[in-house]
This record gives sequence, C-alpha cells and structure tokens, in this order.
Amino acid sequence: MNTDPLAHVLLALALITLAARGMGVLFQRFLRQPPVIGEIFAGLALGPSLLGAVAPGLQAFILPTDAALFVGMIAKVGVVLFMFLVGLELDVRTSKAQGRATFIIAYTSIAVPFLLGALLALALYPLYASQDVDFTVFSLFIGVSMSVTAFPVLARILKDTGVQRTRVGGLALSSAAIGDASAWVLLAFVAGVATAEVAGVAWTVLFAGLFVASMLWVARPLLRRLAEREEKNTQPLSQSVLGIVFVALLLAGAATEFIGIHALFGAFLLGAVMQHDSRLAEQIRARMQDIVMVLLLPSFFAYTGMRTEVGLLQGASDWLMCLAIIVVATIGKFGGSFIAGRFVGLSWRESGAIGILMNTRGLMELIVLNLGLEMGVISPRLFTMLVIMALITTFATTPILNLIMGRHGFVEGPAPGPNV
Amino acid sequence: MNTDPLAHVLLALALITLAARGMGVLFQRFLRQPPVIGEIFAGLALGPSLLGAVAPGLQAFILPTDAALFVGMIAKVGVVLFMFLVGLELDVRTSKAQGRATFIIAYTSIAVPFLLGALLALALYPLYASQDVDFTVFSLFIGVSMSVTAFPVLARILKDTGVQRTRVGGLALSSAAIGDASAWVLLAFVAGVATAEVAGVAWTVLFAGLFVASMLWVARPLLRRLAEREEKNTQPLSQSVLGIVFVALLLAGAATEFIGIHALFGAFLLGAVMQHDSRLAEQIRARMQDIVMVLLLPSFFAYTGMRTEVGLLQGASDWLMCLAIIVVATIGKFGGSFIAGRFVGLSWRESGAIGILMNTRGLMELIVLNLGLEMGVISPRLFTMLVIMALITTFATTPILNLIMGRHGFVEGPAPGPNV
Repeated sequence: MNTDPLAHVLLALALITLAARGMGVLFQRFLRQPPVIGEIFAGLALGPSLLGAVAPGLQAFILPTDAALFVGMIAKVGVVLFMFLVGLELDVRTSKAQGRATFIIAYTSIAVPFLLGALLALALYPLYASQDVDFTVFSLFIGVSMSVTAFPVLARILKDTGVQRTRVGGLALSSAAIGDASAWVLLAFVAGVATAEVAGVAWTVLFAGLFVASMLWVARPLLRRLAEREEKNTQPLSQSVLGIVFVALLLAGAATEFIGIHALFGAFLLGAVMQHDSRLAEQIRARMQDIVMVLLLPSFFAYTGMRTEVGLLQGASDWLMCLAIIVVATIGKFGGSFIAGRFVGLSWRESGAIGILMNTRGLMELIVLNLGLEMGVISPRLFTMLVIMALITTFATTPILNLIMGRHGFVEGPAPGPNV
Repeated sequence: MNTDPLAHVLLALALITLAARGMGVLFQRFLRQPPVIGEIFAGLALGPSLLGAVAPGLQAFILPTDAALFVGMIAKVGVVLFMFLVGLELDVRTSKAQGRATFIIAYTSIAVPFLLGALLALALYPLYASQDVDFTVFSLFIGVSMSVTAFPVLARILKDTGVQRTRVGGLALSSAAIGDASAWVLLAFVAGVATAEVAGVAWTVLFAGLFVASMLWVARPLLRRLAEREEKNTQPLSQSVLGIVFVALLLAGAATEFIGIHALFGAFLLGAVMQHDSRLAEQIRARMQDIVMVLLLPSFFAYTGMRTEVGLLQGASDWLMCLAIIVVATIGKFGGSFIAGRFVGLSWRESGAIGILMNTRGLMELIVLNLGLEMGVISPRLFTMLVIMALITTFATTPILNLIMGRHGFVEGPAPGPNV
C-alpha cells in the first residue's frame, strides 16, 4: 500500500532490534555467552545465510533493496558513534602504569598473529583475493585481521566471568587496549594504502599525520578545557555541550573519511583523546550508550549478516581453508599471548587464560572485515570465512576460560613485577 | 577523493548540528526567542532560500543529492522518535481535570481557524493546489494546517517567560495538548483519505481503527505492567526494557505507515498511551531526549529548509497571498482563543495572552506541512508560504506575550471555575 521506504526502514529496525535483544538474552541465559555474541548471530540469521536461504520472500519483504541501503547507512553512522564510545573507554594512563608485562603481552599478541596471517596470505591470495588488489595490501590486511582483539567484548566477558579483578583480567584488558589501538593504526595505514592511488599515498599519510596532530594538539586541549568546566557543573550536561561534542565527533569522522582512512578512526581517536574518567565523558556515555547499543549497533550486525553468505563456501576445499584460517588465527593469538604470559612470569594456567582472552575477536573483527570488503581488499567468500573465524574464536572464549579457570579462580591484584 | 556518501552524510550532520545549535543560542541570547526557532531558521538557511541562492556550489558540496537522501531518512526517523517523546509528555489526566474552560478554549481554538482555513482554501485551490488533489482533501488539509498549535514550543515559551505557573499558562498548555491530539486525529483522517484510493479509504479507516484499538487495549496494559515492574526497580533502566520500548515504537510507526496514515501517528499514539509520569517514561526520556533533540531533530529542520524555496514566491500576488494566509491563520487562532478566553471568564489581558500563545505553530506545523507536501496535497510554492506563516506566527509569540503581560504578570493558580 505504501512505497515510501520509511515503512520498511522502521520495520527492519524493529525486527533487527527484536532479533538482537532476543538472541542476546537466549545466548546469555542458555549458553552463558555475553549477549553481544547472540546479537551478532541474530544479524547473521537475518542475512542470506539463514533467513535468505529458508524464506527469501520474507527476507526481501523485511529488507528490500532500497530500505537496506538506508539501514546500511544508519548502521555505519551507528558504528562511528560506537567507535567514539570505544575510544572514550580507553584508559591509556592505566595501560602505561601496568608497565612491562602489559607491553610485552600486547605486542607479542599482535606480532605473532600478524606474521602468521601475512604468511597465510600467500596461500589465500591466489584463491580468494579481490581482483586488482595488491599482494602487499592483501597480506597486511590479513595480518591485521588476525591480530584484532575485541576490547569491548573482552571487557564484557571479564565482567561476566568475574575475572575482572584478577591480575590476569587486568593484564588482558590493558594489553587488549594497547593492542587494539596499535591494530587500528596499522589498519588505518592499510586503508590509506589500499584506497589511495600510488601518488595519493603520500598525501594520505601527510593528511593523516596532520589529522592526528590536530587531534593531539588542538582537540585534546580544547576538550580538556570543556571537561574542566563541566567538572564544576552540578547540572546535567547541557545540550549545547553535547552538541559541541557531536559536531567534533562528526567532523572527525568526516575528515578521516575524506582523507581516505575510514570515519571510524577519526571517531575513535576523538574518543581516545578525551579523559575517559571525567564527568564530561561519563555524561556523554550516559546519554549515548544505550541508544547506540540498543538501536544502532544491531543494525550493524544485520548489515554484516546481509553480506555474509555461508552458501558461498562450496566444497571441502573452501571449508578446509576456513578451518585453516581459524587454526592460524588461534595459534597466532593464543600462542603469542601464552608465550608472552609465561615470559613475564605468569603461571601456566594464567598464561592459558590470557591466551584465550586475547583470542576474542567479536565485534571489532567484524568492523575490520567490513572495511576490508568495502575497500575491495577481500572477496565476499573470504569475508564469509573470516566472519566465521571471528564468531568461532569469540564463541569459544567463555567456555574455555571457565575450563582453564576451574574452581580455583586466579590470583587477585595487579600485574606481576614492578612497573617500569 | 572519496565517493562513499558516508563522508558527506557525516559532514552534513556536523554542519546541520553546528548551525542549529549556533542559531539557537543566538536567537535565545539576542532575540529572546526559544532556541528551537533559531534551529528552524538554521535549517532554512542551509536550504535553497539562503545558502543555495548565495553559494550553490557550497550547498551542493555540503548536501549532494545522494547524501541528502540519507540525511532525509535520518530526519524522518528522528521525527518519528520525537513524536513518541511528544506523546510521552502528553498528560491527558491533567487536561481532563482542568475541565470546562480548557475544553472550550481547546475546541474553539481549533474550530475557528479550521473553518477559516477551509474557506481560504476556496481562494488557494485554483492557484496553488497540487495537480490531481481533490478539493475536499485540500480544504481539510488547509484547515488542519491553520489549527495546529506547537505543544512543545509552547511549553518552552511558557517556561522561558515565566508564565508557566499562572492560570493562563496552565490553560494554554492543557488546551494545546487537547487541541494537538485532536488536530492529529483530523490530520490522520486527511492523510488516510488523501493517500488511499476511493475504495481504499474504508480499509484505511478500518485498519486505523484496529490500530487505535490495539494501542488502547493491548499496548497500554502491557506498557502499564512494564512501568509497574520498573517502578520498583532501583537500577537504571535495562537495555532489554529499552529494547522492548524501541521495538514497540518502531513497529507502531511501521504499522501506521503501512496502513497509510504516517508513521508519526503510530509513534505519537504509543507515547500517549504510556503513563507520562512513570519512572519508565522518565528513564526513556533521559536516554532518548538529548540525542533526538541535538543530533536528529536539526536534520529535520534542514530537511524542511531544503524543501522551502522563498524564491518560488514571485510577484506581488504571491506575497499578498502569503500575507493573507498569515492574517487568516492569526485571526482564526488568536481570535478563536481570545473569544473563548473571554467566554470562560478570563480578563482582556489574559484572553489576549491565551490567544497569542495558541497562535504558536512552530515545529508541529512544519511536520504537518512536510506531510502535506509528501502526500502531494500542497505544491512546493504553497508549502513555502505556509512555512513562512508558521515561522512568523511562532516568532511573534514571545515579544507580543511580553507586551501583553507588561510588568504585572498574570494571576497565579489554576483555571477559573470549578472542574466539571
């Protein structure tokens, strides 16, 4: 009766929100997984892999092409807001204070999977690379996609399992924070190289440098002044201040997008240069978090789900390759973190826990993979394999952690050794 | 460098937010107008009337066609969320308690401008109607567009001028609430008639009836139960409960859109059937209000601004007709409310204040006009005239109110006469 896409956009958002919340609760209650994993599964279920395969007519009604376009844009804007919130959570000072152990675990757990991923790229490139993509860019991207840890999902798992206040928990969280920040820098570099012309790379690097400099030396002091003024305020945050933060956030996103390194980086960096424990940050979180998490982020899972087609994997060879990806990703991330854990003096059990925790890829990996697909670095088939890898490594974390932890739990307190 | 519309969408949202907040502050500080009026002007300024006329190249860069499409959808979703919040504010019980005076003022202030508007339609129809629109629909629409009062803007003006706690303020607010609800019902009827085929009208009316019934007898009791559970909760509202409310809101919007009476009505009605002073309502407001008001609503003003072209009014005849619209709208609304005020026993001054307050059209009128333009009832030229009328009547409210009030202020307390 009505051809305005608004009706379909509203319906799609409603069903996506419903599916995400429902699956989130089911996964939490019956599988003891953090709800975000259920939400990701709900998104996949609404895509061609499940709903599209079982009831293509229903899927076409829920998400007709023109409505899907709008839902996709809402999802992208939602992830930009989400990345700002992730940046806002980042506590660089604590990570610094945790010292040597954190540093070693963070970089080992990036370097090992990155190198293994780049090696794996040798096998993947002839089979699954997008057309016209350079091998350097491809192998860098596979390397990054192996070394991502899902900082927000990790934080959630630590909280749900009670590992939060142990030294393993603290180390994992701060290592993931450093690791994530580094992985994003790497990815921004890859994105810059992948999207720019050969001559444009220099410009991209130059502008990206200028952008980072302006964040550190212009945005940070201004935001600090705003935060200081807000510290004395007893009233709730005014809409004017919130408006300023939104404008800065949107401009940072637009700027990085124009530069050629995705809007996500700009938003993340703006969040990261804000003092994460200021009253300002707290008030912003209180106002944005729920609407982003409940209404916008599930659209992103659905958007990812729409692009993931399990049906693209055909024959034993594809599935074997998928298995190989999972194994390499796990060996790299788990192995790297485990060795680093032993090296800094953790017990076998604690090192195992660190290893499995750092192997959580979750939402962050999906963001990285969507970027790769959009930039044309990976093909839809490889995208699907990597999404499966992300889901399985994330899904495995909680049960294996419980197994390793057993009934004993871990030593409480900060990381071993003095801070250096 | 980048052709993904995301960059332009983020940039457009940033500039719209910036312009809206900036103009809002300027209007408040220097013209003593409520900020929302400045925000509306900012939206118009970004459209073809100002920016498009002065710097068409800049306007095309800020809002290229494909990005404008997405910003338009974000604006529509934003207004749907906003109408839910407006419904949530609606206090039907208080209005009932205020009794006879409210009732008389509310319906006189709708009936008089409605009739005058329908008469004016006789003159407007041959000149400015869209092609193929029926005269009945056209005159009904002009009638409705004359009788709208901007409930949220009114509330804001009352608060800013301090008239809130006087009996005039109380009467104006509750009359506007009843009047608004009635005007929306009328408009839903017009929308149903306008968009449906002749045979479809019966279906539209039937489905609309079923929808209202399901809101009253299914949604209301369920929401009341949810609110009661939430009343005992000392924790902040959980994301699951917020998710349920979002799903209900989106489904209500989608349902009315499919029925053929805009999504706004569904969202508004869902808000209206919720207990406006429950803890649930309060927590929802706290989480949604700021992001809707700061980030989403300004897009709607910009979207309206993009469709308003002052340049479409050419020659003296167009401007005279525009003046006639302003005069008829004001006589109808001010005159009707004034007479009703005198009738229920208010003083001359108080009746004048009620009259000017009810003449505030603001944001609500813009929503109505956009609907009319979308349904093809009014032409872009008439749309522009009516937008100008809405702006001028809204803009005039605060200074004239201050003039009428003088130094004396108004009698405090509730409406005169016993409640019946």
